[in-house]
Amino acid sequence: MVDSPSYELFYWPSIQGRGEFVRLALEDAGAPYVDVARRPEKDGGGVPALMKILKGGAPGQLPFAPPFLRAGKLVIAQTANILLYLAPKLGLVPAGEPGRLAAHELALTVADLVTEAHNVHHPVGSGLYYEDQKDESRRASVSFRAERIPKFLGYFERVLERAGRQHMLGGKHSYVDLSMFQVIEGLLYAFPNTMRRITKTIPLLLALRTRVAARPRIAAYLASKRRIPFNEDGIFRNYPELDRAPVKPRPRAK
Amino acid sequence: MVDSPSYELFYWPSIQGRGEFVRLALEDAGAPYVDVARRPEKDGGGVPALMKILKGGAPGQLPFAPPFLRAGKLVIAQTANILLYLAPKLGLVPAGEPGRLAAHELALTVADLVTEAHNVHHPVGSGLYYEDQKDESRRASVSFRAERIPKFLGYFERVLERAGRQHMLGGKHSYVDLSMFQVIEGLLYAFPNTMRRITKTIPLLLALRTRVAARPRIAAYLASKRRIPFNEDGIFRNYPELDRAPVKPRPRAK
Repeated sequence: MVDSPSYELFYWPSIQGRGEFVRLALEDAGAPYVDVARRPEKDGGGVPALMKILKGGAPGQLPFAPPFLRAGKLVIAQTANILLYLAPKLGLVPAGEPGRLAAHELALTVADLVTEAHNVHHPVGSGLYYEDQKDESRRASVSFRAERIPKFLGYFERVLERAGRQHMLGGKHSYVDLSMFQVIEGLLYAFPNTMRRITKTIPLLLALRTRVAARPRIAAYLASKRRIPFNEDGIFRNYPELDRAPVKPRPRAK
Repeated sequence: MVDSPSYELFYWPSIQGRGEFVRLALEDAGAPYVDVARRPEKDGGGVPALMKILKGGAPGQLPFAPPFLRAGKLVIAQTANILLYLAPKLGLVPAGEPGRLAAHELALTVADLVTEAHNVHHPVGSGLYYEDQKDESRRASVSFRAERIPKFLGYFERVLERAGRQHMLGGKHSYVDLSMFQVIEGLLYAFPNTMRRITKTIPLLLALRTRVAARPRIAAYLASKRRIPFNEDGIFRNYPELDRAPVKPRPRAK
């Protein structure tokens, strides 16, 4: 923390969730930021600070949901949009339009995978408890593990291979590497059995994950209290019953 | 169609789907484009042309899924990313970074609503038929209609009001207006009963929809064969059983 932070991140204070993709970029770049809702309410932090902006009680674009970032007069919501804005300023994306579009395309595909991972434990509705949709979740987990994890990770593995095997994009470190690290971490936490079964099909992604974790600022962050542990309020949840059921390939259809 | 089209759009040829957001922008701008998979296979069109790129058989970034756009040497996937690229070139977004970020944020929120609308008839898995997940779909439709449609449309109505009531962004026509038109059309098609019940809460959005439909190029497009009718293979599907069940508000939870 510094006295005059450039960036204020607003996100739920008790989970990694979608905010983590922004936190990782800021941490990797060593950028000054405040994780507003994790500061004490008496210092203008906490969830009330976040709700005030969500309810339209501050100037700037009205966000639909956290995370959002305040940077001077700008209020920017949607995880991938925040990264689109931040990455050039943090030196975390190749210069030039083609590189930025390619990075953003991958970030949006990561976001799709994240949404599907959340849907596994909330297939009926995000307004209901998991306990109220366990049967549907069990069925959703079968499709997700048999089809969707292999499809998404197989795709990312191919992208990494085409890009030269070291980085997701243009042979250079970018925020996409950080986001891939986070997705792999999340899947390993939530679906350890499933991931063990596909280890051999994603060697490049697993090696990338190890390299990202060893980056000095990321290693320091992961060892700090700023990194919230995975838990069962977040997107990636370790519900053994959703990682255990037998997985059979299903016929393709719409 | 012109002899030397600037843009090639690749999308499934029999549905509006996510490709429609791109089609509407190109049509509104009067931009030359080819809807590649809708051209005959003998002329290099059809689904095979699309599959070739999906399978990595062409240079450029590997797309995860349609739609994608080819513009010269660039291959750009992810609907919102395509619009991010196209809109400044088509004059469909305010100049300057704040306006472009605000537009993109709304486009990504539209994309989230579209994903949730699809999830209503595919809560268990996109690889299964609707007929194999009808019970789960019925439950998912209750949450979607009672909570999510009002939440999303209530948000967009507020954004429209804050922006001066005529346009979603900066008092000017933009691609976000076109995307809002499409979402409202889709919801009216798929959930006519639900939409009838909330008509009074979204007067500005409904008026915007009427104005967009009356724009000369959009009106001509909607009356043409280029506009594929809504159908039950797309994202917005009219399944009466998913629009009929009694809707009760549910307690908020995670």
